[in-house]
Amino acid sequence: MLEKLKAEVLEANLSLPKYNLVTFTWGNVSGIDRDSGLVVIKPSGVEYEKLKLEDLVVVDLEGNIVEGQLRPSSDTKTHLVLYKHFSDIGGIVHTHSTWATIWSQAKKDLPALGTTHADTFYGTVPCTRNLRKDEIESDYELETGNLIVETFKERNIDPNAVPASLVDSHGPFTWGKSPRKALENAVVLEEVCKLASNTFQLNMDISSIDQNLLDKHYLRKHGKDAYYGQNHLLINN
Amino acid sequence: MLEKLKAEVLEANLSLPKYNLVTFTWGNVSGIDRDSGLVVIKPSGVEYEKLKLEDLVVVDLEGNIVEGQLRPSSDTKTHLVLYKHFSDIGGIVHTHSTWATIWSQAKKDLPALGTTHADTFYGTVPCTRNLRKDEIESDYELETGNLIVETFKERNIDPNAVPASLVDSHGPFTWGKSPRKALENAVVLEEVCKLASNTFQLNMDISSIDQNLLDKHYLRKHGKDAYYGQNHLLINN
Amino acid sequence: MLEKLKAEVLEANLSLPKYNLVTFTWGNVSGIDRDSGLVVIKPSGVEYEKLKLEDLVVVDLEGNIVEGQLRPSSDTKTHLVLYKHFSDIGGIVHTHSTWATIWSQAKKDLPALGTTHADTFYGTVPCTRNLRKDEIESDYELETGNLIVETFKERNIDPNAVPASLVDSHGPFTWGKSPRKALENAVVLEEVCKLASNTFQLNMDISSIDQNLLDKHYLRKHGKDAYYGQNHLLINN
Amino acid sequence: MLEKLKAEVLEANLSLPKYNLVTFTWGNVSGIDRDSGLVVIKPSGVEYEKLKLEDLVVVDLEGNIVEGQLRPSSDTKTHLVLYKHFSDIGGIVHTHSTWATIWSQAKKDLPALGTTHADTFYGTVPCTRNLRKDEIESDYELETGNLIVETFKERNIDPNAVPASLVDSHGPFTWGKSPRKALENAVVLEEVCKLASNTFQLNMDISSIDQNLLDKHYLRKHGKDAYYGQNHLLINN
Repeated sequence: MLEKLKAEVLEANLSLPKYNLVTFTWGNVSGIDRDSGLVVIKPSGVEYEKLKLEDLVVVDLEGNIVEGQLRPSSDTKTHLVLYKHFSDIGGIVHTHSTWATIWSQAKKDLPALGTTHADTFYGTVPCTRNLRKDEIESDYELETGNLIVETFKERNIDPNAVPASLVDSHGPFTWGKSPRKALENAVVLEEVCKLASNTFQLNMDISSIDQNLLDKHYLRKHGKDAYYGQNHLLINN
Repeated sequence: MLEKLKAEVLEANLSLPKYNLVTFTWGNVSGIDRDSGLVVIKPSGVEYEKLKLEDLVVVDLEGNIVEGQLRPSSDTKTHLVLYKHFSDIGGIVHTHSTWATIWSQAKKDLPALGTTHADTFYGTVPCTRNLRKDEIESDYELETGNLIVETFKERNIDPNAVPASLVDSHGPFTWGKSPRKALENAVVLEEVCKLASNTFQLNMDISSIDQNLLDKHYLRKHGKDAYYGQNHLLINN
Repeated sequence: MLEKLKAEVLEANLSLPKYNLVTFTWGNVSGIDRDSGLVVIKPSGVEYEKLKLEDLVVVDLEGNIVEGQLRPSSDTKTHLVLYKHFSDIGGIVHTHSTWATIWSQAKKDLPALGTTHADTFYGTVPCTRNLRKDEIESDYELETGNLIVETFKERNIDPNAVPASLVDSHGPFTWGKSPRKALENAVVLEEVCKLASNTFQLNMDISSIDQNLLDKHYLRKHGKDAYYGQNHLLINN
Repeated sequence: MLEKLKAEVLEANLSLPKYNLVTFTWGNVSGIDRDSGLVVIKPSGVEYEKLKLEDLVVVDLEGNIVEGQLRPSSDTKTHLVLYKHFSDIGGIVHTHSTWATIWSQAKKDLPALGTTHADTFYGTVPCTRNLRKDEIESDYELETGNLIVETFKERNIDPNAVPASLVDSHGPFTWGKSPRKALENAVVLEEVCKLASNTFQLNMDISSIDQNLLDKHYLRKHGKDAYYGQNHLLINN
């Protein structure tokens, strides 16, 4: 079942070490089949070198295991919350990638400082508030998902236009229309976090990119008038 | 047509990931045949791993496609403006390489702080002003080219002696007598941007290299009295 | 004798360059067989590329060579002190890995700033005081071991919960239930040192992670209620 | 002639890119045969990938070419001055390696901040003053050598105990009993420059390592009572 989606989820998971986004098993990718409402996700604590198609776990949106011999990622509930609330997304990536984790630990929103950021993220990537004691102790991974959803709602950010969140004292989650697109967004987020850190080292008075330039770069790659690439629909999916 | 130039442009494009100058498709190299006035350039949004000779696009200096099935790089108009105004150059490279992008985002001119810089760039590499709203909205990529040309003219910088520009909030463009030379300049620019950032971290009171040392290093590799290498004409071309 | 342990010690030593933890011969891994009280350790100054099973040296807890043609690591006495005082550990790693050495040179305790740290180290990783002249001149390597033990005792830190120490002006030692686990802790320490350095660059007002989040992350991977991985006993051993 | 020395010089030159010390052709290694007073050195501007044994150039201490078809490194005169004044050394390396160049551009002496430094360099690695206009214009490369010799003489530093110098606004030179040893010193210098830069970022109040610890680490690897490695004479040569 869901063989095509499983292949995509496997490939995106195996791409995490390829793009230097993970140490050991510190990351996971999932994908959802919106028709059946089933989610394919990496099993918990399995090394990427040994990960095979049959190790992937299929769960429903309530977290019940539908297929698979292994325990799903410990972050599964976070993924499920995001799939429930962000209805357009098809894949999610969580890592502890170096520079995005640095921003999360620094408890800082990531401002858009240049076109590299604007090509993928239409404005500031938010960092959540910290979780309260009761949230951590009751259902930690579920509350992490709720925290991200709350952040986007309260700050009125469109998760399709800014497909990433930094979680306070933790690390990044990214998403996209597919597991592959969520992976690409994780790669871009890591790079723009590195760029922004070092930009501030060089000039602490920098603020966000000019709004017109942000609009230009985001919209030339996304939306109906996009003109980057050979087929912007293909590229953006 | 232009088979030799196409081979050079292809090789320089494939060298971008080899020298760690690009993520995904974020970069492009072109070359010009001055006799015919035709430019060979990378197609837009095509992955380097899949790029083949027949994918390259040939355009004239007005941007008309003369040969090729694919859409040319979205930055093509910027390249064309530079070829029109910088009459000695034969190749152009644009990337979002990490350290050069950091300087662009920091809106800072890159001063010559040592002989590594002086061996390639005869003085400060400028960072442009930001584009105005009307420039962004009318013909963005063309105006980016005009902005670079304006910067060199107003500040009286010889584009042959300083074959690079940082574009505000965006990233670097480099050029040279050939696509290969433009690529080499992109590699050097990235390295000297990294050196300069970290030099200022260590000593914020540093200013430019002594003018005599700048002259010495630039001129021992460039110009009629050069004595670096086995054949300075060959090396510099 | 001790063939299984030797194989583990060899593999962990060969993993030091693989994980970019060492330059030249600047590191060593040992393992102990608690039944016989014998320790297997890397020989001094031998290149990793040439290191073979039969080069490993077997010593008793007093430092007498029991097997092996080569001189054991010059840091052997430090390892032996740790094995004597930290009775649960089965492996030790010493390196001069870049970021952990930076913290050691800066004479700074490494605070827990995020979940990446909390997943492995249950709180601050201490940096020792500096050694006194008499300690350096009498029995330097032994006193380095004593210094680490003193640090954990005086500050009341459980070496099983914080399996690492930074040694003032020197570098890191890590340990674990096995040579492999000690190696993993060395990899994690290096990464969290890099994260913490750059977190402070971005926000100098950051203090430790919330205690509830520290508890949550450490305890979901360690201890009797752990639920990370497929078999937390296996993963944690 | 000098086949063994040529092989050593070739291997050390080819090791420069392997250890990430050079970009393009920005570095050179030489070795001297003290009996004949002949020096083997890399030709100028030749790519490492194409460098062959027969490309190496043999010069005497006055710089006359004794063997070889190619022009010797443009830095040859600097090497010759060092061989004349530092009578114990057998090999020299010059690079523009990133972190050592950063210290050179920052015009800063590199203090010994830890045992990693002390294992190779017995104290501060000096940065020279800047060259005067007349020195640059008369015989630049020779005066660069004189400048290094002057620095060690005036500051009373033993070039055998501190086998490296940073040259103001330029980059590092290292040396040793052999080309291989000079190369190793270049690798160590690069690493300790990186360590020291980041140590100061973390704690700007750090000063030099305790003198007793400096003595201990330097002398356990060097000199007649060395006890690091299997054969300290072999290791240190």
